[in-house]
Amino acid sequence: MTALATRRCKPCEGGTPPLTPEQAAQLLTQVSSAWTLINSAHAIRREFSFRDFYRTMSFVNAVAHVANIEDHHPDLEVGYNYCHVTYTTHAVRGLSENDFVCAAKIDLIPLS
Amino acid sequence: MTALATRRCKPCEGGTPPLTPEQAAQLLTQVSSAWTLINSAHAIRREFSFRDFYRTMSFVNAVAHVANIEDHHPDLEVGYNYCHVTYTTHAVRGLSENDFVCAAKIDLIPLS
Amino acid sequence: MTALATRRCKPCEGGTPPLTPEQAAQLLTQVSSAWTLINSAHAIRREFSFRDFYRTMSFVNAVAHVANIEDHHPDLEVGYNYCHVTYTTHAVRGLSENDFVCAAKIDLIPLS
Amino acid sequence: MTALATRRCKPCEGGTPPLTPEQAAQLLTQVSSAWTLINSAHAIRREFSFRDFYRTMSFVNAVAHVANIEDHHPDLEVGYNYCHVTYTTHAVRGLSENDFVCAAKIDLIPLS
Repeated sequence: MTALATRRCKPCEGGTPPLTPEQAAQLLTQVSSAWTLINSAHAIRREFSFRDFYRTMSFVNAVAHVANIEDHHPDLEVGYNYCHVTYTTHAVRGLSENDFVCAAKIDLIPLS
Repeated sequence: MTALATRRCKPCEGGTPPLTPEQAAQLLTQVSSAWTLINSAHAIRREFSFRDFYRTMSFVNAVAHVANIEDHHPDLEVGYNYCHVTYTTHAVRGLSENDFVCAAKIDLIPLS
Repeated sequence: MTALATRRCKPCEGGTPPLTPEQAAQLLTQVSSAWTLINSAHAIRREFSFRDFYRTMSFVNAVAHVANIEDHHPDLEVGYNYCHVTYTTHAVRGLSENDFVCAAKIDLIPLS
Repeated sequence: MTALATRRCKPCEGGTPPLTPEQAAQLLTQVSSAWTLINSAHAIRREFSFRDFYRTMSFVNAVAHVANIEDHHPDLEVGYNYCHVTYTTHAVRGLSENDFVCAAKIDLIPLS
């Protein structure tokens, strides 16, 4: 468990600037290498694949529990055998530490 | 309940042609008008919005149950207050009656 | 679909008496015969069985959606291949029409 | 995180004896003190309470993911604002280490 995964999401304050690409790149090293920066470093994304829809939904609901507890919610693309997870912080129009905290928590959800 | 919602998905047979745009347009009249043809009539899509993520996931899991029972699975985009549902039939590289049968069943899931 | 399944749960008013055993027995004829009166007609219960835990949880989440929409919540016993659903109305210390409305809606959830 | 939570459930072999009450009592010290031995040390049980049914089901689905991944399934009692989790190992007619491994994993699911 990395230090990031043990942190909690903080309430977003209006006016906070988003992470710079350099800050984002540094935090990216603290989560699974499967996460990538997208949208000019305004979001992070990880793709998960599964054997069937039952296993996909089991994982989706585990992700949802993290979102509910942290009150920070990803955008998900979900289909028969996949779930793609994207985090961004709308309130700062880019990435915040919250996105990486949640990514680190998602990394702890067991896959098999 | 429309006749469509009472039908069951049929196993897809290889070599079956997809619905023509005309056939798709006709079946589209038998589901909620919120469904639209997309991708040159290769898929149908409906957008749902919700008050919060708990209500979104409650609906997503109800959709998942329809998918599990019919063994025909949508592609979903899911976020804090929305779920977009897309049906297509990969085996025929376009739309099949199964997509409309499932759309009609999704229409029966209560929203409030 | 029975008339009962098309009704909505009503807010419980304090002081409302519970259904009499005779009233409960009459409403019981309008839901699946798999529902039984228990606890001296203070609750109704139906047992469902499934092939595995994935299918059980798919059904449990479909039941949960009905509960969320109706704002009337069952007590569930859930294990690997079973889900037992019990409805009672705590506010009236017995059965109300709400319990049968929800039972009728649960009866509409597809099982296979 | 205790060592127990990092272990995996092992396939149950027929003929394996259940844990003795002494062995069970020792493993019980390695999980949350909210777990109690029940049924003459044939099962362990922990009660969780929540603010509403949405939060209850979010937790229930997180528990279900642990069960799916470990292929070891609890018995759950679930209602509006509670979830009671019971583990036993039917194959040994009593407790096995698997029950405590899963209990330790359940202890890691965040509650708030």
